[in-house]
Amino acid sequence: MIWFTEYQTKNTGLTVKVKEAKHIQSKYQEILLLDTYEYGKMLVLDGAVQTTERDEFIYHEMLSHPALIKHRNPERVLVIGGGDGGTVREVLKHPEVKQVHLCEIDEEVIKVSKEHLPTISNQLDNPKVSIFVEDGNKFLDERKSYYDVILLDLSDPVGPAEALFKRAFYEKVKGALREGGIMAAQTESPFLQELYFKTAVKEIQKVFKYYGTYLAFIPTYPAGMWSFTIASDDVDVTKTDAKELEKLKNLNTKYFCDKIYTSLFSLPKFVSDLIK
Amino acid sequence: MIWFTEYQTKNTGLTVKVKEAKHIQSKYQEILLLDTYEYGKMLVLDGAVQTTERDEFIYHEMLSHPALIKHRNPERVLVIGGGDGGTVREVLKHPEVKQVHLCEIDEEVIKVSKEHLPTISNQLDNPKVSIFVEDGNKFLDERKSYYDVILLDLSDPVGPAEALFKRAFYEKVKGALREGGIMAAQTESPFLQELYFKTAVKEIQKVFKYYGTYLAFIPTYPAGMWSFTIASDDVDVTKTDAKELEKLKNLNTKYFCDKIYTSLFSLPKFVSDLIK
Repeated sequence: MIWFTEYQTKNTGLTVKVKEAKHIQSKYQEILLLDTYEYGKMLVLDGAVQTTERDEFIYHEMLSHPALIKHRNPERVLVIGGGDGGTVREVLKHPEVKQVHLCEIDEEVIKVSKEHLPTISNQLDNPKVSIFVEDGNKFLDERKSYYDVILLDLSDPVGPAEALFKRAFYEKVKGALREGGIMAAQTESPFLQELYFKTAVKEIQKVFKYYGTYLAFIPTYPAGMWSFTIASDDVDVTKTDAKELEKLKNLNTKYFCDKIYTSLFSLPKFVSDLIK
Repeated sequence: MIWFTEYQTKNTGLTVKVKEAKHIQSKYQEILLLDTYEYGKMLVLDGAVQTTERDEFIYHEMLSHPALIKHRNPERVLVIGGGDGGTVREVLKHPEVKQVHLCEIDEEVIKVSKEHLPTISNQLDNPKVSIFVEDGNKFLDERKSYYDVILLDLSDPVGPAEALFKRAFYEKVKGALREGGIMAAQTESPFLQELYFKTAVKEIQKVFKYYGTYLAFIPTYPAGMWSFTIASDDVDVTKTDAKELEKLKNLNTKYFCDKIYTSLFSLPKFVSDLIK
């Protein structure tokens, strides 16, 4: 019997029973593809759970839809990271989207996902999607005022994604948005990763005029409590109007809905206090 | 080095590193008192984590305050279960409360909490509090139309608390409330305990005229996603008014706040769907 424990800190972790494990060492990281009894297939990078078949819908819906709903006409979307394809799948649920660029540094993640996680990666071959196997930091050096929405679907700020949680990177993201552009990022857990959370959110707050942080329940992520931050220089992302609620009705989602959207920024007191 | 894993289902669990473990077999259950590195002291009953020093505030605040805020004048409060004292501590933050009855079946839980969890149990000796070491089911047979608020602070519906998740018990709870009375119960996790959750909520819906289910992030509970259900025959618990928001301002809390309160029933789509 195989058991896998993800050490979310050095003193606590998530333990799962495993049917089968596949191990790949890529140029950037250790990739584990586990077939678990509770969560179905699970993708683990450098020991950290990235996604599972059973609960991936929560993360992918919550990273994508608030930004795409808030944008008046999101035609051009960039996803940085997210090689599993789950975010791309959600983005394509919005009929306004004409072009999705996916910039993923590690080709092996895309390969493993296409082969073993078809329900997550099934839109990577959609004709609207172009995949760039590149460093997100370098990729943005060549893209100015182009995208309507940029989604930062990154692993933790250790390893390959470290530089993508810094102020200089958020400045590049801002530069790559065209007028009316909105970005959203996963910004770690306010509970077991208080410092990662606080740092990421504070840096985003310094770069953009409007911003808001929201949470979602993600059972396989540290503390089950995950944060996202949405930001823009042009759009007050904290406001909601009736047109947005209309757009939202037609989305085929399992977690995200009108109630989640209208109460998006209702944070527990200790979470608000951390990012005041 | 000691590690403890709580198996939240047979295929997944929460793992914590332990400094010291104390084991007591009571008449009803196995009590483990763990001193953990991540969460401080942790109380475990029959293998299931009940409370930890680090995250207990979330559960205790969220079980108590919505019901106490919604009641116009909560003078008499009954807590069933909750031998650790955390719920009693939160209840006493409301100045209207004149009398708190705590009905806990297992005296050992109270003893262990008083000795080892002082920040949680510190109001158990408050003169407003009376402790009854009794079966909640029998206790309610003798209390009719007496309480303003009843809080069901129960362990999982296996073991000693099993009968307290059934319709017949919710009927007794209703009978023990006086006019304008409100009850709130912990109703398990909608994610890893879907059936427990659904059953508890549905039974409450059958017994009371008004009801609402809400969630809170509890890192050490299954999936980190926990539910509570509030119900009443006299008060529409789903409505909020300005007076309630006024009362809420003076509470000394770390999780519960005006934003949490006004968006209390904003559930993820799949959770609403389970209890429709």
